[in-house]
Amino acid sequence: MQKKSRYNVAIVGATGAVGSEFLNVLARRNFPIDKLKLLASARSAGQKIVFKNQKLTVEELTAKSFEEVDLALFSAGGDRSLEFAPIAVKAGAIVVDNSSVFRLDLNVPLVVPEVNPQDVHKHQGIIANPNCTTIILCVAVAPIHQINPIKRIVVSSYQAVSGAGALALAELKTQQKDILDGKTPQAKVLRHVIANNLFSHDSAMQENGYNQEELKLVYETRKIFHDDSIQISPTCVRVPIYRAHSEAINLQLSQNVDLTAIKSRLEAAPGLKLVDDATKNHYPMPLEASGQDAVLVGRLRKDLDRSDVLSLFVCGDQLLKGAALNAVQIAEIIIGN
Amino acid sequence: MQKKSRYNVAIVGATGAVGSEFLNVLARRNFPIDKLKLLASARSAGQKIVFKNQKLTVEELTAKSFEEVDLALFSAGGDRSLEFAPIAVKAGAIVVDNSSVFRLDLNVPLVVPEVNPQDVHKHQGIIANPNCTTIILCVAVAPIHQINPIKRIVVSSYQAVSGAGALALAELKTQQKDILDGKTPQAKVLRHVIANNLFSHDSAMQENGYNQEELKLVYETRKIFHDDSIQISPTCVRVPIYRAHSEAINLQLSQNVDLTAIKSRLEAAPGLKLVDDATKNHYPMPLEASGQDAVLVGRLRKDLDRSDVLSLFVCGDQLLKGAALNAVQIAEIIIGN
Repeated sequence: MQKKSRYNVAIVGATGAVGSEFLNVLARRNFPIDKLKLLASARSAGQKIVFKNQKLTVEELTAKSFEEVDLALFSAGGDRSLEFAPIAVKAGAIVVDNSSVFRLDLNVPLVVPEVNPQDVHKHQGIIANPNCTTIILCVAVAPIHQINPIKRIVVSSYQAVSGAGALALAELKTQQKDILDGKTPQAKVLRHVIANNLFSHDSAMQENGYNQEELKLVYETRKIFHDDSIQISPTCVRVPIYRAHSEAINLQLSQNVDLTAIKSRLEAAPGLKLVDDATKNHYPMPLEASGQDAVLVGRLRKDLDRSDVLSLFVCGDQLLKGAALNAVQIAEIIIGN
Repeated sequence: MQKKSRYNVAIVGATGAVGSEFLNVLARRNFPIDKLKLLASARSAGQKIVFKNQKLTVEELTAKSFEEVDLALFSAGGDRSLEFAPIAVKAGAIVVDNSSVFRLDLNVPLVVPEVNPQDVHKHQGIIANPNCTTIILCVAVAPIHQINPIKRIVVSSYQAVSGAGALALAELKTQQKDILDGKTPQAKVLRHVIANNLFSHDSAMQENGYNQEELKLVYETRKIFHDDSIQISPTCVRVPIYRAHSEAINLQLSQNVDLTAIKSRLEAAPGLKLVDDATKNHYPMPLEASGQDAVLVGRLRKDLDRSDVLSLFVCGDQLLKGAALNAVQIAEIIIGN
């Protein structure tokens, strides 16, 4: 992209949960914006959204939306991305896409800026933003992988309800209230009652017994690490928490675990915050990860039996580092910031 | 124990959460009781409790409580067990103890009736009931271990708040209400806010980085399976759920996984219920496990990379199979029922 002092930016899906986080992150990080275009479906067109004290009007997403746009951040679902990302590229924009549709495309880089920033420059117009659970895992384990390559990951997730959308979160609150009031909770948005309950991640189940969320974790992590030999054994679970995903991670490494070396590496790593205070039973928790840019990492401990195995626990805000922040960081690399 | 048609039974800790489940389970299973003695601290003495339409008065636990008692079920904390279980044995009773103090004692059998019932008969007066998380794990994986021995277990738990006691559960409800009302939730019983949050299990953290709950899972499972070679890598987490513990389990077996054989084995196994319907995303959930005797098991799937690895997900009621039911089942073996 031609170096400019300010760029024309389009947000596709500006009225959604991730869309509004895009706006917060762009403002907070002072992204050099010339014109900001807010795009959404016809239903949302006309809505007013305030960005840096300026009232902007949401426009309908059409094939003509991308004229003079330098950068387009997409988070409006896979179908919109499939249809409009190529149109945006043709119009001269570079697309950072938050949907899953391009992530495993060989011509599309899949980037976590703390892990594989150099891949951004291989793009042919589209750069994909990984799945939230993948990003949180990769940021946390990449510094370990760099000093002691990972052979195998067993990971169990504890995923917040807002990851399933604003309606799911509202449903959790309604169910919590109903239960406290002695009423029977109803599940309409999610497949099962989620208040005081948990269930296997509600993405499509595959023939092999893994759901889509789990397979994203496997294939996206391998692509980001440029290493198809990493074995990943995932279990993704939805838990009754408003915001921030957690993951219990068990890593088999190539060599013996040097806990001190790994701790200092994680402490110095970008995008991470070590929360590991045994005296206060203070480790990563979703309440503390919510609204934070950093992924929290802690409960670092050696396996009781195997000298090459390490366990840890991580929490990250799935709407920030797991989505909007990661995409804006990619955009910053594109413009050379 | 001498065979009788009816036995004198004492419940130590009769007013506690597990104590009241003892009474429910004894009544429901028609345990052949002659006299039932309800014991608790001086503070609770005098309380009336109904058992099978009979109003019984709680008595203070003293050194004289166990005269003519055949069977004593203890669930009043480790200190009470340490002090009074030997007194009960001396008075001629057989003790089933729900605390952790005798579990790893070489002279005390540690029993899950579906797994190692024969160990009951080795007792010298005391039989220990395992930790809830251990029982739920063992019931689920024992049938697999019998046809394809387990070499290694990686397990992440999702533990209900009632496992931390009735006050913790009340605190969760108060916090949920406060959050819904826009107030800031306060943590008084548990170390951190648990509503819409989760945290590393609040048992004492050891030098090696594992908490007590995790080490119970390791050492108790090995004792129950009579196999110290089983490697166990545990992560225990408290989640904002009222009742029933869940566990994401990854098993490395001795031979290749035969999924069909394992499924039929689990389907036929005592104490288990297979819940494994991919078409409805219907797998074990705490809401469905609550109040059930059976441990729910599902999400059975082969590892994506390793032919000797199997994953599964289990849920069990930690107050029933995880505590009171298991203890009463042990008592049934003692009396030869």
